[in-house]
Amino acid sequence: MAVVYLNGRYVQAERAKVSAFDRGFSYGDGLFETIRAYAGWVFGLERHLARLKKGADQIGIPFEGDVGKWRQVMGELLRRNRLHGADASLRLTVTRGPDVLGSLLPPDAPPSPTLLLVARPLDAGIAERQQVGVGAVTVHWGSPFNPLQIKSLDYLYNMLAMTHAKREGAQEALFVGADGCVIEGTTSNLFLISQEILTTPHEGSGLLPGITREVVIELAKREGLIVREAPVPLDEALSADEAFLTGSLKEITPLISVDGGRIGTGSLGPVTRRLQKCYRAAVEEERARGIRGKS
Amino acid sequence: MAVVYLNGRYVQAERAKVSAFDRGFSYGDGLFETIRAYAGWVFGLERHLARLKKGADQIGIPFEGDVGKWRQVMGELLRRNRLHGADASLRLTVTRGPDVLGSLLPPDAPPSPTLLLVARPLDAGIAERQQVGVGAVTVHWGSPFNPLQIKSLDYLYNMLAMTHAKREGAQEALFVGADGCVIEGTTSNLFLISQEILTTPHEGSGLLPGITREVVIELAKREGLIVREAPVPLDEALSADEAFLTGSLKEITPLISVDGGRIGTGSLGPVTRRLQKCYRAAVEEERARGIRGKS
Repeated sequence: MAVVYLNGRYVQAERAKVSAFDRGFSYGDGLFETIRAYAGWVFGLERHLARLKKGADQIGIPFEGDVGKWRQVMGELLRRNRLHGADASLRLTVTRGPDVLGSLLPPDAPPSPTLLLVARPLDAGIAERQQVGVGAVTVHWGSPFNPLQIKSLDYLYNMLAMTHAKREGAQEALFVGADGCVIEGTTSNLFLISQEILTTPHEGSGLLPGITREVVIELAKREGLIVREAPVPLDEALSADEAFLTGSLKEITPLISVDGGRIGTGSLGPVTRRLQKCYRAAVEEERARGIRGKS
Repeated sequence: MAVVYLNGRYVQAERAKVSAFDRGFSYGDGLFETIRAYAGWVFGLERHLARLKKGADQIGIPFEGDVGKWRQVMGELLRRNRLHGADASLRLTVTRGPDVLGSLLPPDAPPSPTLLLVARPLDAGIAERQQVGVGAVTVHWGSPFNPLQIKSLDYLYNMLAMTHAKREGAQEALFVGADGCVIEGTTSNLFLISQEILTTPHEGSGLLPGITREVVIELAKREGLIVREAPVPLDEALSADEAFLTGSLKEITPLISVDGGRIGTGSLGPVTRRLQKCYRAAVEEERARGIRGKS
């Protein structure tokens, strides 16, 4: 029965549990290394730990890449799994650890990282493939930003962007593509208003199609506003009359500046206010319908 | 004390644990939705579940987005947390569930997804920000492929590419950038050999700098080979004399075809074989040094 090393203890694999609030689980907020052991010798350990330490420093997870300690732990884990005489693979995972009750930004308190080390026998097919070779296919993604435009757990870069925003005294970070057009915020979509025309980045930009974005587009059209889904160059945002962000929690929140440059009057504008009211009316309408049993 | 819903049960937050082998934790192999509740009414639930279901279908995680069931569970969770009269946020997470002992490709067995629902009071600052507005900063990433070039847990797209390769009868998938140049494989780096010159994609391509890539570059130079780190157009790969992939587990594995097109003789070539031997010698050398206590 397999034994793993989890947060300083050797435990049976099926008893190895992490908090459901571990940020590795919630946001992909962590790193890993896969390392090969040759009959107990863990090759290139210094380099792997150095890379892991460098990445951890970059994203702000405390990690001490002590080679002596890890060589001892890895040797012990291989022995406990009777893999010290065999070709084996080791995977070392380091996450930011558990949150209190989960928000995208990590808590201000120092993280308490989760450390997981798993040893497995080496895949038996590797040696053969080293002799006969392998074939590859190619993957070309239109936008590598979020190729399938799904709300996946791969959220580390959203968290890093939001952390950057917070450090800069801002409340959101907008991702700008190689073409200089805004894609989306870390937890929001962007709308601009100029002369009663709403513009929002089109799906082809690589954005995650937000639910609130969808609702707002419908409501705005119902209100007689024109809605354009189109590429949005960053400077278009700065010259808009009004701008707002949408998200399920923030609903419709005015965006009053980007990189310190003021948008419009720098305050809640009339069209944004009107849409906020429509949005709340839509919530009430849905609730009334739902309570009448048509959910 | 907060209660969450985990795999069909209501449990205390601090007792809510998932397997350390959950693929959500290992590879970001899952999806989530964040939804707002208005005094117990979960707004836009149909749309959120439809998006989640669509994403789950795209990545092959079984999920039934039954609105009636989830409305009941969400209502119950809000009540248990005394949030049914307040503004609240709900986060629903769906992962592919636990693996046996973790490989990038999901097991052939049908997944047993992990379902986690968490309710929290709505962040009190949201209402104020809806009145006064927020500022944003912009984030421009040279390559959105892996902006920090770190080995993070955001591995869903690597897994999807590898799954695609397997379906096509190949053993690896190579990511090709918008410029038509190869970046890396899902778990490997690429090297080409033509006239005793090794070429490998440069770090500026957005690749994760592999440990084995680094070792191979050093060994090849020591062997008197010329090593170029440069953009690698895909057709350059097809016209190479030899090609190989590097990775900590696969060491140096010949790449004999790409998208069905044969590379060189379609078999293990002489330079690749020579480097394989050097690599094993380097492992033995490091082990001998280590055993003499200089680790």
